[in-house]
Amino acid sequence: MDWLDSVKWDNDGLVPAIAQEFGSGDVLMFAWMNREALAQTAASGRAVYWSRSRQQLWHKGEESGHVQQVHEMRLDCDNDVVLLRVTQLGHQPGIACHTGRHSCFFQRLEGGQWRSVEPVLKDPAAIYR
Amino acid sequence: MDWLDSVKWDNDGLVPAIAQEFGSGDVLMFAWMNREALAQTAASGRAVYWSRSRQQLWHKGEESGHVQQVHEMRLDCDNDVVLLRVTQLGHQPGIACHTGRHSCFFQRLEGGQWRSVEPVLKDPAAIYR
Repeated sequence: MDWLDSVKWDNDGLVPAIAQEFGSGDVLMFAWMNREALAQTAASGRAVYWSRSRQQLWHKGEESGHVQQVHEMRLDCDNDVVLLRVTQLGHQPGIACHTGRHSCFFQRLEGGQWRSVEPVLKDPAAIYR
Repeated sequence: MDWLDSVKWDNDGLVPAIAQEFGSGDVLMFAWMNREALAQTAASGRAVYWSRSRQQLWHKGEESGHVQQVHEMRLDCDNDVVLLRVTQLGHQPGIACHTGRHSCFFQRLEGGQWRSVEPVLKDPAAIYR
């Protein structure tokens, strides 16, 4: 059986994908993949997602240069979530978030409010020209 | 504005949630939360999810004793994914997966196949009695 057939795709043909930084263990981002995105990710060793808003393949870093090199791909116990262990290329330290931050998870719940607690490493205006 | 109102709930009133081990950085599991689950998680400091299969609140560890103590809650840039940083209680090392493994992400893609690469720490038959 094809390894892609082992994945339980949802009703939209998608599977959630978590990108984790290989060295630090930091959770960088969360996105979705369809079958083609997952196949291309495995074949190329670069993360490819499915953009639900644009309804097209999203080669991570295609505009920003912030490509994700994929070291390892994992599947969970229910076969319906993918975990990528990646190196975030294009900037040091890596920038996974479109806001110019290291990780998309930069808002922390503090005293009943979400507060931004991580620095912007690069101005998004300079990333997306 | 209530911090719960800042979350972008999907059409089913849910938000994806990632549980990451606080000490190791390991990604333990992925689940879903509704508003009540997220509110109870924040109030109790213990992870509460929404079981889509059972259509009810799922107090993680209610049967297994493998409760997740929540140290920190984060929200992503689009306000539509939650990250919990947790200590996995009830066993040493922690068991987050219903298969008796540390993490749900125990299948690794190797040579075009998903292979189980993490040990079962406790027999599920002994966990769920």
